[in-house]
Amino acid sequence: MATVTLLDDDALGPEARAVFDDIRATRGTDYVNNFWRAMAHDPETLRAVWERLKTVMAPGALDPLTKEMIYVAVSVANACSYCIHSHSAAAKAKGMTPEMHAELVAVIGMAMQTNGLVTALQVPVDDAFKE
Amino acid sequence: MATVTLLDDDALGPEARAVFDDIRATRGTDYVNNFWRAMAHDPETLRAVWERLKTVMAPGALDPLTKEMIYVAVSVANACSYCIHSHSAAAKAKGMTPEMHAELVAVIGMAMQTNGLVTALQVPVDDAFKE
Amino acid sequence: MATVTLLDDDALGPEARAVFDDIRATRGTDYVNNFWRAMAHDPETLRAVWERLKTVMAPGALDPLTKEMIYVAVSVANACSYCIHSHSAAAKAKGMTPEMHAELVAVIGMAMQTNGLVTALQVPVDDAFKE
Amino acid sequence: MATVTLLDDDALGPEARAVFDDIRATRGTDYVNNFWRAMAHDPETLRAVWERLKTVMAPGALDPLTKEMIYVAVSVANACSYCIHSHSAAAKAKGMTPEMHAELVAVIGMAMQTNGLVTALQVPVDDAFKE
Amino acid sequence: MATVTLLDDDALGPEARAVFDDIRATRGTDYVNNFWRAMAHDPETLRAVWERLKTVMAPGALDPLTKEMIYVAVSVANACSYCIHSHSAAAKAKGMTPEMHAELVAVIGMAMQTNGLVTALQVPVDDAFKE
Amino acid sequence: MATVTLLDDDALGPEARAVFDDIRATRGTDYVNNFWRAMAHDPETLRAVWERLKTVMAPGALDPLTKEMIYVAVSVANACSYCIHSHSAAAKAKGMTPEMHAELVAVIGMAMQTNGLVTALQVPVDDAFKE
Repeated sequence: MATVTLLDDDALGPEARAVFDDIRATRGTDYVNNFWRAMAHDPETLRAVWERLKTVMAPGALDPLTKEMIYVAVSVANACSYCIHSHSAAAKAKGMTPEMHAELVAVIGMAMQTNGLVTALQVPVDDAFKE
Repeated sequence: MATVTLLDDDALGPEARAVFDDIRATRGTDYVNNFWRAMAHDPETLRAVWERLKTVMAPGALDPLTKEMIYVAVSVANACSYCIHSHSAAAKAKGMTPEMHAELVAVIGMAMQTNGLVTALQVPVDDAFKE
Repeated sequence: MATVTLLDDDALGPEARAVFDDIRATRGTDYVNNFWRAMAHDPETLRAVWERLKTVMAPGALDPLTKEMIYVAVSVANACSYCIHSHSAAAKAKGMTPEMHAELVAVIGMAMQTNGLVTALQVPVDDAFKE
Repeated sequence: MATVTLLDDDALGPEARAVFDDIRATRGTDYVNNFWRAMAHDPETLRAVWERLKTVMAPGALDPLTKEMIYVAVSVANACSYCIHSHSAAAKAKGMTPEMHAELVAVIGMAMQTNGLVTALQVPVDDAFKE
Repeated sequence: MATVTLLDDDALGPEARAVFDDIRATRGTDYVNNFWRAMAHDPETLRAVWERLKTVMAPGALDPLTKEMIYVAVSVANACSYCIHSHSAAAKAKGMTPEMHAELVAVIGMAMQTNGLVTALQVPVDDAFKE
Repeated sequence: MATVTLLDDDALGPEARAVFDDIRATRGTDYVNNFWRAMAHDPETLRAVWERLKTVMAPGALDPLTKEMIYVAVSVANACSYCIHSHSAAAKAKGMTPEMHAELVAVIGMAMQTNGLVTALQVPVDDAFKE
């Protein structure tokens, strides 16, 4: 159903294989999900996206769970079903409880609602909010 | 520039005035931002949105700052300029440092990118991600 | 601020001028709004869009005001500021009262909210809803 | 396939059960659709969304069928498949004929098109459209 | 799963049949895809969309393959799964190689990312970019 | 109006300055546009985005002008005003004629329209389009 085939390990060239090895080592699991198997047709972009994802999602001023929840929020607004599934699963793996999930969902719904109200009313930005 | 006039305090009916009083008391400031002044034409919706916002954004399993950052993320994906300004300001007021802001922005950018890649490739959801 | 210049009447070629004449005759006003002045660089598309708009927005199984409100709803979800302004104005000109406007805005907000909730939860479509 | 389980009636706590009872009584049917079963993990949000939905979608200055069509329009622009199915079904149940459905769809398509044209051309809002 | 039935050739009225004949003649194939079968309930819109599509996608200042790739790009940002599948297939039929597809996908991802960064930061448009 | 200040050259740290030097050298102009001045608060992301942009937008299986037009198409669907301005300007600088621009805009409008029609009708993907 993808617009490209999902590549099995056997079909990987050496550059994609090296990225898959790093995905496995970084995540401590042999499982490599479909996104990377679709991306593996373009090893250069595969590598660039994986390297950047590792950096951006690493612990920093924000913790990895908070980052996963932000990722889910963007993915919902973009209606990316795969992304919602994969990053909701990642958030759970990083400690998102059902209570946290429920609040995440409620905040997303609230933001969607006021985004719609504000945009329908074309409310001008308050001077107080400007940098 | 709004599609309705922004109501001054003098133009409020008693129901809208009561909501404005609660906004001021809850936030500890006399300032009421333009969103509520545009909403005040419809006191019933004004009240419902304000009451729900208070509940959803209150401390719970997620802290208020995390909730504000999730709010910003949704607002960016929906291109709601007013909402990005107001909730970025709210996040700063609740302790978001420049480093946290930079990471929030980077995660949003990353999510937008992989949303696009996944959707372009129409990657099917892994069984492993299904509930 | 547009990515093309807005064409004055003097700058129109004969094909664009004919469309402007029809816009004026159909609407019963000399005023031609900026959208058509930006479109006038491409007279073939100008004509096609104007002809189709006349047909689609004409009275039919749905009345013109209902159609304008549907137009506003789509434009809000797409964050098209110009479209929200122009079609909210058109709806008012066709009889949308402040009460109707307030309900339109509230329904848009409600729909945005449940769109977000449903998408975040990835709720499967009930068999009962399938054709 | 949802990111949470859909709760059967047996799995509901007392607060969610009370909301389900009201959904059934209000709609005059025993059937409760999947959205509410996914929401039932968070009884407080379940209740708030249901209560607000009842109010917003009730007859007012706009009739319930017009409101359902506006709901569909927003849901299309947000690509919410579930919402399109459920609110198209609701609109049909409230009297939307195939002719009305065809016009709804045509207006949505027209609005999407001019949203794209206007945004690509970055057309500035006419002073005439400003409040 | 569509919100209307997909019409078989036997179910077409004369106006829709004429459009289907033209689709077959223009494309040199007997196959008419599901989009047109769903649209065939509204022969007037069916005809208008088909006629306009033929004109817009014909060779001009841009070649048909470039136009298909632009179509895919818009469809990804709008999360239109059907459109991504059909226009990716059309692009392949018009000569899009796997290398071109990979670059198309990478550009879409890059654009989504900087769209998110720019919108999050609310960067003002440079005077240098204004017409 | 941005949510961060735009950094002047004097305010750059050494890592951001090095990226600005490369932007100037690569583009053959002293002008650095606002996007990079907003990004410069986060030199690591600034560098990553710039490096990736250089690679993705370089000549390859697709020429740079085609890539810019795809970029504009995504930016329109995401309603990113800044991105539409900057990448329309870049496309013009790379040879986009007014005729090509008009066709780009018409294809975007067409795609938006059928995205809306397809999504409203929830048309299932033809087997013929599946990989």
